Amino acid sequence: MTYRSPVTDIRFILDHVVPLAPVAETEMFAEATPDMVEAILTEGGKLCDEVIAPTNRDGDLTPAKLENGVVRSPAGFKEAFAALAEGGWIGIAASPEHGGMGLPQALNVGFNDMLSGANLSLQLNPLLTQGQIEALEHHASDEIKALYLPKLISGEWSGTMNLTEPGAGSDVGALKTKAVPNDDGTYAISGQKIYITWGDNDCVSNVCHLVLARLPDAAPGTKGISLFMVPKLIPDDAGKPGVANSLKVVSLEHKLGIHGSPTCVMSYEGATGWLVGEENKGMAAMFTMMNNARLNVGAQGIGVAEAAYQQALAYAKDRVQFAPIVEHADVRRMLAGMKAEIFAARSIALACGVAIDMGRATNDANWQARAALLTPIAKAYGTDMGIRVASTGVQVHGGMGFIEETGAAQYLRDVRITTIYEGTNGIQAMDLVGRKMMDEGKAAFRLLQEIEDEAQGAREAFPVLAEDVWQAAEELREHTEWMVSQGMQDRFAGAVPYLDAFARVLGGYYHLRAAMAEGRDSARGHLAAVYIRRLMPAYAASLAEAKEGAEGLYALSVEDLEA
Amino acid sequence: MTYRSPVTDIRFILDHVVPLAPVAETEMFAEATPDMVEAILTEGGKLCDEVIAPTNRDGDLTPAKLENGVVRSPAGFKEAFAALAEGGWIGIAASPEHGGMGLPQALNVGFNDMLSGANLSLQLNPLLTQGQIEALEHHASDEIKALYLPKLISGEWSGTMNLTEPGAGSDVGALKTKAVPNDDGTYAISGQKIYITWGDNDCVSNVCHLVLARLPDAAPGTKGISLFMVPKLIPDDAGKPGVANSLKVVSLEHKLGIHGSPTCVMSYEGATGWLVGEENKGMAAMFTMMNNARLNVGAQGIGVAEAAYQQALAYAKDRVQFAPIVEHADVRRMLAGMKAEIFAARSIALACGVAIDMGRATNDANWQARAALLTPIAKAYGTDMGIRVASTGVQVHGGMGFIEETGAAQYLRDVRITTIYEGTNGIQAMDLVGRKMMDEGKAAFRLLQEIEDEAQGAREAFPVLAEDVWQAAEELREHTEWMVSQGMQDRFAGAVPYLDAFARVLGGYYHLRAAMAEGRDSARGHLAAVYIRRLMPAYAASLAEAKEGAEGLYALSVEDLEA
Repeated sequence: MTYRSPVTDIRFILDHVVPLAPVAETEMFAEATPDMVEAILTEGGKLCDEVIAPTNRDGDLTPAKLENGVVRSPAGFKEAFAALAEGGWIGIAASPEHGGMGLPQALNVGFNDMLSGANLSLQLNPLLTQGQIEALEHHASDEIKALYLPKLISGEWSGTMNLTEPGAGSDVGALKTKAVPNDDGTYAISGQKIYITWGDNDCVSNVCHLVLARLPDAAPGTKGISLFMVPKLIPDDAGKPGVANSLKVVSLEHKLGIHGSPTCVMSYEGATGWLVGEENKGMAAMFTMMNNARLNVGAQGIGVAEAAYQQALAYAKDRVQFAPIVEHADVRRMLAGMKAEIFAARSIALACGVAIDMGRATNDANWQARAALLTPIAKAYGTDMGIRVASTGVQVHGGMGFIEETGAAQYLRDVRITTIYEGTNGIQAMDLVGRKMMDEGKAAFRLLQEIEDEAQGAREAFPVLAEDVWQAAEELREHTEWMVSQGMQDRFAGAVPYLDAFARVLGGYYHLRAAMAEGRDSARGHLAAVYIRRLMPAYAASLAEAKEGAEGLYALSVEDLEA
Repeated sequence: MTYRSPVTDIRFILDHVVPLAPVAETEMFAEATPDMVEAILTEGGKLCDEVIAPTNRDGDLTPAKLENGVVRSPAGFKEAFAALAEGGWIGIAASPEHGGMGLPQALNVGFNDMLSGANLSLQLNPLLTQGQIEALEHHASDEIKALYLPKLISGEWSGTMNLTEPGAGSDVGALKTKAVPNDDGTYAISGQKIYITWGDNDCVSNVCHLVLARLPDAAPGTKGISLFMVPKLIPDDAGKPGVANSLKVVSLEHKLGIHGSPTCVMSYEGATGWLVGEENKGMAAMFTMMNNARLNVGAQGIGVAEAAYQQALAYAKDRVQFAPIVEHADVRRMLAGMKAEIFAARSIALACGVAIDMGRATNDANWQARAALLTPIAKAYGTDMGIRVASTGVQVHGGMGFIEETGAAQYLRDVRITTIYEGTNGIQAMDLVGRKMMDEGKAAFRLLQEIEDEAQGAREAFPVLAEDVWQAAEELREHTEWMVSQGMQDRFAGAVPYLDAFARVLGGYYHLRAAMAEGRDSARGHLAAVYIRRLMPAYAASLAEAKEGAEGLYALSVEDLEA
């Protein structure tokens, strides 16, 4: 199977569906001209297709290994990572001040989408580094910035996020890792962290750990958490990797998928750390890291779905049962559905990227609220969709899909983690109906109004599709009005289906925009009809579930669940 | 995790939801008294819990191996299989004439459900043997019956089904394996077969292959296919395994899941075979095998879902994040949904079993049509649901779910095959809207009428739930009326969502019956509300998709799909 990066679709979406043009009109992103966008996506796509994608199976077949305390990457990863680093791809969205390209996040999302389709395991390495770069840009001292950012942006060093501990997952505030002040202004970090992605690797000359830890006598919970930079090798006076810090990789996890990505159990034993941001304000910095990562995890789901789709389509064209199976109605249904869902999720993720860029460049609170609203949707829908599409990809292959050599199953195994990490999709949904509705739904209503207005304007050209989208947005608006008057428990009980409904309405909206750009009898017009008529209607069932609230769930006691 | 067979739920369903009582009133199944049912399920459950389930992880960790042409089962499988065989469990539904228990298929379905939850890989061994037993009972000569049936039923020997070839999957008629008549009435079988489940094993002293092959000058397609018994070791005059036949296991597949079950590539090189049934009538015998297997593959999905659910619930009670996560609304939603879906699918499968038994015992055409109608629904919904629930099981575990040692991921990997084999779920759905609607929907309408009548009667006790079920059945009836007037291409394009809608309405109906039996404030009443109010409503979206027909799918050309 030859993976081909979805350059055309990403370009089309940024041109017509969620236009990047207003971003390029800002001073901050003036360099993001159409020519630059074209060059970035084309060159990035080429790298993904020719250099990165060929390493994907190797990552699965020869997983990362821990040898004498050092992680060995799978065959080919070192070279592929070097190509990524040399091209400056890690720092697409990083500040030019320290060597980044300073381009819009929307382009970074597009690149992460393509890179995830090429090799999800490898993509995780720069993804975590990107989160760290953003956290340092916002919260670190000038000294730390000057020392670490150029190396992280160039890919000389890589970054990790150390949040989770055995007893502290979603409840980050329960973490126990300790930070004790040393006399020289540094801190001694001690504790165990788990699920540390790319916690060590031989693609880079140093690994920089951002570690959440607790100062002596810090307040309990999230208010007593501070963030520290804890490098594997302590930089010497010249900024070169020096003596080894007191930390180690204890073991690698044996996982369902992303075998190429080493998931480490880390032990810190009085390791030297430098405070990032203020004492006890670690959560704010963590959210900076995670916000970037959440959107780009959404892009992971989309990228893997794209690769799974391409492979399923190639197989369906090739495989003859009576006729090439792509001609069978049910296979056609599966493939068209996959393509339509990918387009919807990709549009949502890029819309979120554009909103982030507009929020940063203009400081407009509405854009910032739009970005905040779209982030959990982009993450959860992109990854839920990724699992659905990868599973359908297996199904299209029939028996061959269950055979590992085919590669279809790897996509399913790999993408399965994406609904879990960077905050489970349940957490994303609770963020949507909770924090993101603290404005009483204002940001949501603004977006829904925009959808209704657009659908209104599209009625003449697309009487059926426009009416469907308008109606769906209207029902979602009504539901949202009802929801913001409910207590948190009832919101939370319906959070996941509510998010799904929101995403489907958005997907229908963006498909409608695509159809408007290309016309009714275009391929995009037909694909829009597939989405709006066949896949979007599930929003109603999701809203029905969301409206049930919590009571019925708790009517079943734990004993009832066990019976 | 300690697996506990769902004896209580199966008993309850057979008592109150899809009563076995009418079956026990027939002469054929007079032995299936309540005491016998109790004894069978309790003893079967005990065997599954204590002897079979403890081998499940070993099957995954130490897969079946091919050593010098012989398959070695995983650790513990031989002993577990011996216990199954000794208890007579392989022949629960087999004719007493050759040593079977002659009990209803409904009980066999219940047992297969429990056994699949305990160890899916191992369950496949007797499952295939059961299909072979049924094929021989219906189609083989008395000589073959006398020789093979007692050994298959006792578990001394095991059976396989050899249909698929590299170019002939869903298109069985494309197969190329040859059968050339020998002078002594036997046939020389030559060809390659793939995906042969338990194609060899060391749990038994002989492996009996039922092989589809083509006589010289046979008609092309399915009309030129005959069925042959091709034993691994040719029985001597005393019926003992004698000289080796000219067949071999070429290799084992490397699969996503069911690692404990050897999936063989088989090569027949002029192997001696005996005709089963008439020349060129092999497809009929194959359908006998497959019909049994299809329903019991549905039971596989249900059993694995049960095991995944139990493990997720145990984890959710134990894992504390703020509070035990079972107390979080979204986790509660996931668990309640899993339990409700399992109950729905289990009821459908047992209803199908009861219909098969009634059809056999009474020869009533309505019961037979009911069985035929429910078989593809039981298979497809049981297995689709199995994947959904196993995937949700992973999600409930959070990051732990992605770690292989947890075991949650194994359920997802194992169950993923069930929507593919014994006819993909797409094929099941086409069977439903095609062959099973050749009566212009009569069997479906009879069932829907029954649902509407029951719902009508339940309105007083359950005003909301009964109305929901009535309404859903009514919409399904209207859709079915419309559908039977459509051509096959349009039916096929909507077959999968139509089947899903049908299953959800049935699920709602059976939940309503359960609620009626126990009352509104009972655990089953609450669970019924979860299903009917939260999960059943997706039927409407499925019907909307089904109603779109084929046109919109083909409006997207293959080139459009590639763009």
